[in-house]
Amino acid sequence: MRLTKFSDYALRVLLYAASCDGRRLVTIEDTATLYGISRAHLKKVVRLLIREGYLEGMRGRTGGFRLALPPERINIGRVLRSTEPDFEMVECFSAENACRLSRPCRLPRLINEGLAAMIAVFDAHTLADILVEPRHFVGEPLLPLPRRGPSLPPSGGDG
Amino acid sequence: MRLTKFSDYALRVLLYAASCDGRRLVTIEDTATLYGISRAHLKKVVRLLIREGYLEGMRGRTGGFRLALPPERINIGRVLRSTEPDFEMVECFSAENACRLSRPCRLPRLINEGLAAMIAVFDAHTLADILVEPRHFVGEPLLPLPRRGPSLPPSGGDG
Repeated sequence: MRLTKFSDYALRVLLYAASCDGRRLVTIEDTATLYGISRAHLKKVVRLLIREGYLEGMRGRTGGFRLALPPERINIGRVLRSTEPDFEMVECFSAENACRLSRPCRLPRLINEGLAAMIAVFDAHTLADILVEPRHFVGEPLLPLPRRGPSLPPSGGDG
Repeated sequence: MRLTKFSDYALRVLLYAASCDGRRLVTIEDTATLYGISRAHLKKVVRLLIREGYLEGMRGRTGGFRLALPPERINIGRVLRSTEPDFEMVECFSAENACRLSRPCRLPRLINEGLAAMIAVFDAHTLADILVEPRHFVGEPLLPLPRRGPSLPPSGGDG
């Protein structure tokens, strides 16, 4: 189970824009270099974030973008609702559902309960809660950690 | 954000096997017809569920499979840990992480918190909690509902 790259990039674009807030505009170019990701993909991400009112775009040679709202008004759950194409965790959540058990089945309720628990965590946080200090965005790149997670509890037990 | 089809099918195979428990063996053929899904894909799912000790396979012309454990000992969280290839919600959870912010960033902690909240819901339930009555697996297929969910709260608010 993964978030889309689109969501991952969107959150990182917002983090970077927040780190520059009030000092300078951010460009696609800078962001692509900073994170080592494709400009084409980032363009789509930035376009959506502008359309959704999270970023403000400035055209022209010296253009770029910046946060359109203070970080404490950018709710992470709401951002992910815009950037994830869907939350169709199982087939019966989708329009192509062909499962004959759909009506009596109790699986969708359980899956929805899990999904709601996750989204509640994201809904309880804003960009302000996860800001990275501006100094970490400049200078020599830090070596990335090979991986950070995920950190699931070791097992679900026997029952 | 979705579970893989593999996980979705695994849970449905377990539900069907549970509905037949003690009365007859289930076959790939029956399961494929019941759910309208590919036999090749189902074979891989059943093989994994046997390897993980959830199903017991019987070879031969009259062979098939059945639950190897009572439904109340089949924990949904544990099943999903076996069937999902990973829970690499964001790039920095993966071995291919190239993000220079990995060390100071607080996003992974938030994402892990959301993931843990979802998994805790699944860890708190077993197959016994979502059993579908055997009568729903036989006879004329019910028309599937066009879609069941997901049911997210309407929005994450402003902050």
